[in-house]
Amino acid sequence: MKKILVLNSGSSSLKYQLFNVDGDNYEVVAKGLADRIGIHGSNVVLKVGDNKQTKEVALPTHTEAIKEVLDMLLSGPLGSMDELSAVGHRVVHGGEIFKGSALVNEKVLKDIEDLSELAPLHNPANLLGIKAVDSLLPNVPQVVVFDTAFHQTMEKEAFLYALPEELYIKHKIRRYGFHGTSHAYVAGEAAKLIGKKGKIITCHLGNGASISAVNEGKCVDTSMGFTPLAGVVMGTRSGDIDPYIPLHIMKTLGKSLDEVNALMNKQSGMLGVCGFSDNRDVETNFLNGEEKATSAMKVYIHNLLKYIGGYIAVLGGVDAIVFTAGVGENGALVRKMVIERLAYLGIKLNEENNNKRGQTLEISTADSKVKVFVIPTDEELMIAKDTVALAF
Amino acid sequence: MKKILVLNSGSSSLKYQLFNVDGDNYEVVAKGLADRIGIHGSNVVLKVGDNKQTKEVALPTHTEAIKEVLDMLLSGPLGSMDELSAVGHRVVHGGEIFKGSALVNEKVLKDIEDLSELAPLHNPANLLGIKAVDSLLPNVPQVVVFDTAFHQTMEKEAFLYALPEELYIKHKIRRYGFHGTSHAYVAGEAAKLIGKKGKIITCHLGNGASISAVNEGKCVDTSMGFTPLAGVVMGTRSGDIDPYIPLHIMKTLGKSLDEVNALMNKQSGMLGVCGFSDNRDVETNFLNGEEKATSAMKVYIHNLLKYIGGYIAVLGGVDAIVFTAGVGENGALVRKMVIERLAYLGIKLNEENNNKRGQTLEISTADSKVKVFVIPTDEELMIAKDTVALAF
Repeated sequence: MKKILVLNSGSSSLKYQLFNVDGDNYEVVAKGLADRIGIHGSNVVLKVGDNKQTKEVALPTHTEAIKEVLDMLLSGPLGSMDELSAVGHRVVHGGEIFKGSALVNEKVLKDIEDLSELAPLHNPANLLGIKAVDSLLPNVPQVVVFDTAFHQTMEKEAFLYALPEELYIKHKIRRYGFHGTSHAYVAGEAAKLIGKKGKIITCHLGNGASISAVNEGKCVDTSMGFTPLAGVVMGTRSGDIDPYIPLHIMKTLGKSLDEVNALMNKQSGMLGVCGFSDNRDVETNFLNGEEKATSAMKVYIHNLLKYIGGYIAVLGGVDAIVFTAGVGENGALVRKMVIERLAYLGIKLNEENNNKRGQTLEISTADSKVKVFVIPTDEELMIAKDTVALAF
Repeated sequence: MKKILVLNSGSSSLKYQLFNVDGDNYEVVAKGLADRIGIHGSNVVLKVGDNKQTKEVALPTHTEAIKEVLDMLLSGPLGSMDELSAVGHRVVHGGEIFKGSALVNEKVLKDIEDLSELAPLHNPANLLGIKAVDSLLPNVPQVVVFDTAFHQTMEKEAFLYALPEELYIKHKIRRYGFHGTSHAYVAGEAAKLIGKKGKIITCHLGNGASISAVNEGKCVDTSMGFTPLAGVVMGTRSGDIDPYIPLHIMKTLGKSLDEVNALMNKQSGMLGVCGFSDNRDVETNFLNGEEKATSAMKVYIHNLLKYIGGYIAVLGGVDAIVFTAGVGENGALVRKMVIERLAYLGIKLNEENNNKRGQTLEISTADSKVKVFVIPTDEELMIAKDTVALAF
């Protein structure tokens, strides 16, 4: 029996889950959040089963935040600090260095720091979490699991942009892809369900969204790019647009580089088109026939359809399509609208199953030529498993 | 019998073709080019059959250039100025105003001028040609044929970017698409060959390249966007890239907006990846196993494949795929590499036909589930036909 802590550190917040691991059995015994780190009004939340505690406490840095999380865990789910066997961290950018998860050492820390140029907001925050754990629990092994690692199997044909070659060679500009842990998890679960690795398209549709083409367990293409801005339309991100547009906006509307970046990342996507970034609001207004929500929904479906169709061509066919994350797991209407457009492939929707919620579901009919699944994603479980695999 | 002059005016050059029109029969009786307008060393070329004349002459403006073209035509193919029945012009940007070709009048000229904000290099040059003809031949009707018009049938789901809505409403930022006259022409020719309008994917692959999805004769999506930079990889243009990349290059490499624009439009694409923008050079080096040309070719094919697959999904199937323009008509290897990846759809290549040149060809086998054609494009013929249809 081992206890594994999984941490996802952002610049001002820190999500955590505590796992009890017994052989192949992984049980979440507690989870929560330290919020507003370095900001006035910070607090830590601990959930054990249905029980939720909130503690308002000053959290000047990630070290205090992790210390408070550990203190709250020691008040219940964690008997003593010695019970903690290892800590696993989500890290956003592993560049071309990390093709899988890694046990933390000096070299790994240096590499993550060096990769901050590619993820200036995320990697430094992730590092704060690792360093805080190191200062508090110097003898506990730590493992890092990268959002980009699963996509490192992509061939050059999929990851190379048609830009001057020094931009890739010297400046590392290429497609990396993100949400890799989620794509890897649901592709693996889908492979179990169809009884082979096969050709799988995974649709991670949350506020951020990406689609991957997975062949025989390996990612061959993914919709996010050099950054998580690219690909399909998202809650507040534009996804793919003509790359001249950001320059045109700067030139003709007099906006600064940072303003245009914020516009594409925070004021675009579903929010930009219809005023709602949350798919539940978009669905409600779409069903009421509201004009802008109708446009937003149609633009979204059209985008998903183009990527799914494109990846079917890249894979040379498809055995299973998987929906996961917030919209993927709960957006029955989005799934229905996408799957019905794939009827030309002999894909058929099981409407009854499509309307169920909160579980792994086969939402294609028995005679559908391609299996379609809803599989709730579980990045923390993947991180816990990789942590166990590498730490002991 | 009518004589129709077709003009394609650039900022410093002017291509022309003179058609003899007899009922439904359109014959090119002369063609040529006025080059280096407003630049030292200008000249006019006239080709009649195999005969080619070049005249070195000062061409300070488009008016002198058109006057010299007419003078050269009067030396042979044109008996007198009175024989000229109408002039047709290619105009790049028709915005949302022009959903088809138009007879030139004051309103049309004003609209083309107003649309210059969307095509600052092209529309003003196109206008120079129209005004020059007007000054020289005030009584000859003129017709304008727009590169964007065929794509105006796209629905909002295909043309709207997921950006703040005022960028579309106030600033006209949307997908327009280009090469419309070519897509319309080859889609029409393919429809004749398959005996129905059906679902057709047209691949206009030249130095510039775009792919369109055409359903029942109407464009439903196209790969170029707000500008001709977007979409598939081209000779020197990047096509789609993560829209943060231009900002990243400005920010981290200290390049100016105009430098980044030039980089994406003139130093990218096949040229950026392997040093060759011409597909013949890429093919030769690819066949010799040269590494960069191999990367470039694979990136190109992967891009084409994603778009074709995406458009098959958008159309809900496909009846015919058409290749046209420089690479589409002559790049047998590109066609082979794309079509072989579509085998999962029951598409089969007729290798013998694929290796023929310079004519309309069916390059799929008799038992292929989808017809694949090479159809030489003829934008000038389309312009001549629209000119006849609207001028008389």
